[in-house]
Amino acid sequence: MKVLVLNSGSSSLKYQLIDTKTGESIAQGYYERIGHRQSFLTHKVNGEKYKIEHYVQNHDLAIRVMIEELTKKDYKVIDSLDEIDAIGLRIVHGGEKVSEPVLIDTEVEKIIKDCIPLAPLHNPAALLGIEACKKEMPGKPMVAVFDTAFHQTIPEHRYIYPIPYKYYEKYGIRKYGFHGTSHMYVSRRVAELIGKPVEDLKIVNCHLGQGASICAIQGGKSVETSMGLTPLGGIAMGSRSGDLDPSVVTYLMEKEKISPEKMNEILNKESGLYGVSQISPDARDIENAAFNEGDHNARLALDNYHYLVVAYIARCVAAMNGIDVLTFTAGTGEKGWETREEICKQLKFLGVEIDTEGNKFKGQEKKISTKNSKVEVYVVPTNEELMIAKETEEIVSKLNK
Amino acid sequence: MKVLVLNSGSSSLKYQLIDTKTGESIAQGYYERIGHRQSFLTHKVNGEKYKIEHYVQNHDLAIRVMIEELTKKDYKVIDSLDEIDAIGLRIVHGGEKVSEPVLIDTEVEKIIKDCIPLAPLHNPAALLGIEACKKEMPGKPMVAVFDTAFHQTIPEHRYIYPIPYKYYEKYGIRKYGFHGTSHMYVSRRVAELIGKPVEDLKIVNCHLGQGASICAIQGGKSVETSMGLTPLGGIAMGSRSGDLDPSVVTYLMEKEKISPEKMNEILNKESGLYGVSQISPDARDIENAAFNEGDHNARLALDNYHYLVVAYIARCVAAMNGIDVLTFTAGTGEKGWETREEICKQLKFLGVEIDTEGNKFKGQEKKISTKNSKVEVYVVPTNEELMIAKETEEIVSKLNK
Repeated sequence: MKVLVLNSGSSSLKYQLIDTKTGESIAQGYYERIGHRQSFLTHKVNGEKYKIEHYVQNHDLAIRVMIEELTKKDYKVIDSLDEIDAIGLRIVHGGEKVSEPVLIDTEVEKIIKDCIPLAPLHNPAALLGIEACKKEMPGKPMVAVFDTAFHQTIPEHRYIYPIPYKYYEKYGIRKYGFHGTSHMYVSRRVAELIGKPVEDLKIVNCHLGQGASICAIQGGKSVETSMGLTPLGGIAMGSRSGDLDPSVVTYLMEKEKISPEKMNEILNKESGLYGVSQISPDARDIENAAFNEGDHNARLALDNYHYLVVAYIARCVAAMNGIDVLTFTAGTGEKGWETREEICKQLKFLGVEIDTEGNKFKGQEKKISTKNSKVEVYVVPTNEELMIAKETEEIVSKLNK
Repeated sequence: MKVLVLNSGSSSLKYQLIDTKTGESIAQGYYERIGHRQSFLTHKVNGEKYKIEHYVQNHDLAIRVMIEELTKKDYKVIDSLDEIDAIGLRIVHGGEKVSEPVLIDTEVEKIIKDCIPLAPLHNPAALLGIEACKKEMPGKPMVAVFDTAFHQTIPEHRYIYPIPYKYYEKYGIRKYGFHGTSHMYVSRRVAELIGKPVEDLKIVNCHLGQGASICAIQGGKSVETSMGLTPLGGIAMGSRSGDLDPSVVTYLMEKEKISPEKMNEILNKESGLYGVSQISPDARDIENAAFNEGDHNARLALDNYHYLVVAYIARCVAAMNGIDVLTFTAGTGEKGWETREEICKQLKFLGVEIDTEGNKFKGQEKKISTKNSKVEVYVVPTNEELMIAKETEEIVSKLNK
């Protein structure tokens, strides 16, 4: 089955056409600055990269350009839209009502709309994408795969916040968790690599990218994760703070006389590794400053980050009362061997032992723990698009029966 | 040596006269509602309790009444003030400048004053107490024992918050930690009970009262603790939230249109066990509702609380890369055997095993782990006053040499 996977941002559109049989990506692209001047598409196919500078006013038009590129005779990808069997859309927030991928209908659209207060930037953008698909590819079955859905199995006493309960009832304030598709993909993939059913394993997956989250997967289900009400919660990230003593927030707001909105911006865009290092949100820049220039704050930012990751891994292990497998994925998780080494060093008390030489690589699917390690440690590059394509296939193939 | 230990609140004064040789409390009292109508003193001596209803306008007068009670001939405690060798004062916030108890002089008073922004309720009250002592007991050596001092050994990468570094430089926003005297006392006491030098142990101490904090003590020094910039941070407490996804704070402020001050009040007084249970900040009331009345939210509040304690213990273990001893202290820690049992049950992955029958007691100094347990688990009733008296003695005895 050929599935078109879409990730629709407020002024962007990412797509990937995937053959679910082979798991291969046939073509992919990224439309940037939709609605702004100088909007452009980067389309990748057959190992080549094409930059198409084509101003589009909205998502409808962006999708039209995407279709043009996908069906261009020269590329020999597809001849017409008929060859696309279904569309899988990544949606950030599904609230408490969805715990698995669903076929998009008016009810699902309403759920996405209802969750706008919880994801004010992402969910409206997803709706734009859905509308554009309906208009430009009418009748094509669409499946919504929610970032939050995988975490709906987290028990109540872990997702509830110790604040007045009425705020949960009134606004739905609770831990939701994100990166669900990635955590699901990696946990299932590592079980395959180990050759055991995922149901028999206690896995902690570290998704360490610009955004970062940690997830405890027990019996194939998410039972704890670090991100919370929004993707700001949990561990420190590139430019996000993660969890804090909340008096830090109110204290700063009073001292600096700033609004909740401005505070939120500081915590999302000026904090984390960037905030402490004062250099960059990119771990590579900070590592460079720390290791090659001996920059104190760069070293401090890294040490703080590693420790917070280690602390949350420990929390996830406590949530499962044990651990069989530890996995690293996403940007830093896949490429940052220094980060992996540092984190694993601090997990000796759990019996984690890695092959430090064998760990010095970037972005492969590989076991890095030693024979003596009590915990199997793997690097598993994430593939959210493939997971979305597979989930979409599963739902759509049932439709046709 | 006879040391008078004082804890001065904004409208209260707690005192205890301790004989450091025997470690015994000779007399103690609690003055409430100073400056308000119906202020009164509860004075305890020789196993009797006296309620003295005596309106006092300020701390000077409260101290005068205290002196009267201490020197009353009937009680045979002391004949005159001359018998008090020194005064030990509990001070909440010492910022980054003090890492141990110090003799109070103008410089120390300035430090306490400088830290008022970080402890706007507590530090001014402490200064009131100091002034009153100077006036009513002139020339008596006074020692300040800071709640934050013990935690000054926490390494930088654990006390720095992943927010813009300039806020640390500008306002001193960092983790300070509290309950330092209690964590120090319990860690030293449990080392005595075990018969090993505290320097050789990795200890996690759980101070679980209305306020609650967890501390990792390695080599006799605090290397991590749960409370943060203020005593709001860390784990959930009676009515405090502990750490949160900070977007919960800004989200609520926007939705409810409330000020940082009001938000802070909600997080300090209406959250934690009280917030989730909607019953009471007192663990005993909540346990009653959960166990005897099957109240869902009461059960939820307890489960949430136990889990957050367990998660922070795991973090502390990660900070030390191991654990030898786990201790429980303060209200719930000393009396709540159900809480201890539940927490230890969730720590099996560390090799913690307790004698569930032997654990069913309240407020004794006792080992509760089994012979097979990989971690020694103790209940150690805290005694901050004795610790303050001993620290005061140590400093004052050097003075006289």
